[in-house]
Amino acid sequence: MEDQKRQDQASAEVQARIRTSFERQGLMGHLGARIAHIAPGRVHIVLPGRPEVTQQNGYFHAGATSAIADSAGGYAAFTLFPEDTSVLTVEYKINLLAPAVGDHIEAVGTVLKSGRTLTVCRLEVFGVRGGERSLVATGQQTLICVNARPE
Amino acid sequence: MEDQKRQDQASAEVQARIRTSFERQGLMGHLGARIAHIAPGRVHIVLPGRPEVTQQNGYFHAGATSAIADSAGGYAAFTLFPEDTSVLTVEYKINLLAPAVGDHIEAVGTVLKSGRTLTVCRLEVFGVRGGERSLVATGQQTLICVNARPE
Amino acid sequence: MEDQKRQDQASAEVQARIRTSFERQGLMGHLGARIAHIAPGRVHIVLPGRPEVTQQNGYFHAGATSAIADSAGGYAAFTLFPEDTSVLTVEYKINLLAPAVGDHIEAVGTVLKSGRTLTVCRLEVFGVRGGERSLVATGQQTLICVNARPE
Amino acid sequence: MEDQKRQDQASAEVQARIRTSFERQGLMGHLGARIAHIAPGRVHIVLPGRPEVTQQNGYFHAGATSAIADSAGGYAAFTLFPEDTSVLTVEYKINLLAPAVGDHIEAVGTVLKSGRTLTVCRLEVFGVRGGERSLVATGQQTLICVNARPE
Repeated sequence: MEDQKRQDQASAEVQARIRTSFERQGLMGHLGARIAHIAPGRVHIVLPGRPEVTQQNGYFHAGATSAIADSAGGYAAFTLFPEDTSVLTVEYKINLLAPAVGDHIEAVGTVLKSGRTLTVCRLEVFGVRGGERSLVATGQQTLICVNARPE
Repeated sequence: MEDQKRQDQASAEVQARIRTSFERQGLMGHLGARIAHIAPGRVHIVLPGRPEVTQQNGYFHAGATSAIADSAGGYAAFTLFPEDTSVLTVEYKINLLAPAVGDHIEAVGTVLKSGRTLTVCRLEVFGVRGGERSLVATGQQTLICVNARPE
Repeated sequence: MEDQKRQDQASAEVQARIRTSFERQGLMGHLGARIAHIAPGRVHIVLPGRPEVTQQNGYFHAGATSAIADSAGGYAAFTLFPEDTSVLTVEYKINLLAPAVGDHIEAVGTVLKSGRTLTVCRLEVFGVRGGERSLVATGQQTLICVNARPE
Repeated sequence: MEDQKRQDQASAEVQARIRTSFERQGLMGHLGARIAHIAPGRVHIVLPGRPEVTQQNGYFHAGATSAIADSAGGYAAFTLFPEDTSVLTVEYKINLLAPAVGDHIEAVGTVLKSGRTLTVCRLEVFGVRGGERSLVATGQQTLICVNARPE
């Protein structure tokens, strides 16, 4: 797995571009999320469990699950965009399949179709406890490529 | 508006049930969200703007927008559930219509169809600056009524 | 109602453009659907009940319900597009709220947000029997405006 | 492929149950759709191209694409249901990725999560021309298991 992951990394330039953008997302830092892997067309984001990200029964809140899924899909799309562009989420749909429990959850965004204007991603979120991994949410997302605004 | 809102409140019992549940949602407190209104079949949640809830361009993060939309819809459904039941989000879909900016955003969850097992809600999120209010996201959500687990 | 509808019609040019397109949709004719109303940003399509549009229990098939909902939303968006453009459905989501029964069903597509590239519509489908009308499906749809291809 | 498919068939009883239900769906017959494969948790439905299933540019209409996708997912769920139950679509979301062209289209519904009450399916539709197969739509669907009504 680690070997496969290593072979499967986006270019240093793309990784840097995504990490820089991620660090500017106040919400991701506030939740405690971090990028775990950046491949061409696929990004993993991890969120450790702690009381600040729960719903009323102590599970991960659907809002936290969705937030990292949305970011994972957005950055997965972004890995395939040309320079000087930016990514916006048009819409997404997510099914919460099971209570999201675990030491951490991991969102995986994967590009299904990459177009000039629109990109469609699959979103998956896994609950991870020790070596066990189970699918807790699955979704589908549409993103748009826009010209980056001059600073 | 205030008059209309006042007439339009859920019973004290339902309000208490929802506020108690909301306070147990670690994520809502961590984001700084609060319940603004509880009517039968409709709940409003407000999230003030601050760096902790932004995406990379300084707008409200889609994850924050979705999190309060999901909670607003969940509690809107919950206002119509019998006692000793609990609410879970089955799935939702949300379109992000415009960059979410404002002093705060306000999510409104409204029950469209209330069934014995499943409830469907409309989700709307508004950006509010001064007296101006504009729709920044709209969605649709399915929820399920489950027996509350014994404590 | 009839008065309000009459005041509320799209221009003759827009109506003609939409009726011409609709007549080229082999599926709509094959199902027996017809356009019932064309307002700026809102289109109604009616589908009479008959065995050819049912599912296994004799209700309108979700596929038929969705087909006219999708077309109603597409044409609602199209009423607001510039000349020499065409409309494509990017995606939609629909909740089937109740068995679709009635003498006919009526889909109403309404533009919620009209952008230069993307448009978002609300989709509603009603079952109609005699004077009674009940909501049987509700959805949300994203459409894209593309240049019409030269013939 | 054929070998893999042969090994991968649902029981004769399940196949019969599904074919009987499918034949009662007036819409499927009217469109000209047929069941191509029934595996446990996965059903394929094929729709040949002809003018009766097109939109205004001669592609397969999104409504036809969605109709067979919805049925494929519904029957995929149904393969895993206990006897004396019935399946209803709660909701689905579908992205139309590319113009649906081909000699025929093939919808594949696959169960992602099977629960006692709710089942979630992935929906995929392929355009097939000669030996070539390309993904034209992808979706996600929620279904509910209900007691079959006594006849």
